[in-house]
Amino acid sequence: MSSLLGTSVIAQIGLLVHDIDKTSRVYADFFGLDVPTPILTDAPEIARTEFAGAPSPARARLAFFNMGSLQLELIEPDAHPSTWRNHLDEHGEGVHHIAFQIEGMAEKIRVLEGKGYPLQQKGEYTGGRYAYMDTAPDLKVLVELLEND
Amino acid sequence: MSSLLGTSVIAQIGLLVHDIDKTSRVYADFFGLDVPTPILTDAPEIARTEFAGAPSPARARLAFFNMGSLQLELIEPDAHPSTWRNHLDEHGEGVHHIAFQIEGMAEKIRVLEGKGYPLQQKGEYTGGRYAYMDTAPDLKVLVELLEND
Repeated sequence: MSSLLGTSVIAQIGLLVHDIDKTSRVYADFFGLDVPTPILTDAPEIARTEFAGAPSPARARLAFFNMGSLQLELIEPDAHPSTWRNHLDEHGEGVHHIAFQIEGMAEKIRVLEGKGYPLQQKGEYTGGRYAYMDTAPDLKVLVELLEND
Repeated sequence: MSSLLGTSVIAQIGLLVHDIDKTSRVYADFFGLDVPTPILTDAPEIARTEFAGAPSPARARLAFFNMGSLQLELIEPDAHPSTWRNHLDEHGEGVHHIAFQIEGMAEKIRVLEGKGYPLQQKGEYTGGRYAYMDTAPDLKVLVELLEND
């Protein structure tokens, strides 16, 4: 028996929010952490974001908190089509995904698609790439794959 | 600056499901883990569950997966009033809470209530006790306090 991902270590929990500045301050106060400066995901020509099989100019502001061995990520999406925007519009603020550090992105995506978990969105960032796989019907939460070079 | 909980280490992620046997098998297959045998929360005279300020006979079946330094908990509630049943009915299957190991349950509940986070449900289990605090409006997810003796 082996993990489809090569790991079962949760590296990140991602939550969608409407106002990342406000919610970041609340998290920092609640957990006694520094208020992070949100980062903006890369421009489309770098991020090469694909959502539902098509390129999307969608970007998001992200803020990270270290909470034990994993990160809690806040995500404030822009208005363009993305897994973030759709999920926020459909479900409201709250948990969007759990993420795992993997190796061999293309192969892992192929394996998951073969098991009936479609690719929902993928993109690049400086030093790595990500993919959201639609595991929600089975696992009741989205799985994000993260590969850092 | 200090955490209201005395910690910022996420110990557990809890997900609500309709069919814990089915979803446990899916998780086990997906992550290459053993299929856990679900446990049933204690009977009302032991659990002394209180939901929304009143005793409740609610129970749930629970299954745990070790996924790194934290546990992923699946929760299948019965039909009686509880944070689990209400959340499942209102939001469907998915993440219900993030949990933290704390010390001094009564004091921690008092501190959080003083900050505007009401107690939603509490109860006992062999070797400890738990409390769900309604942090959702601010943190976008419920916080569970866990205290083991």
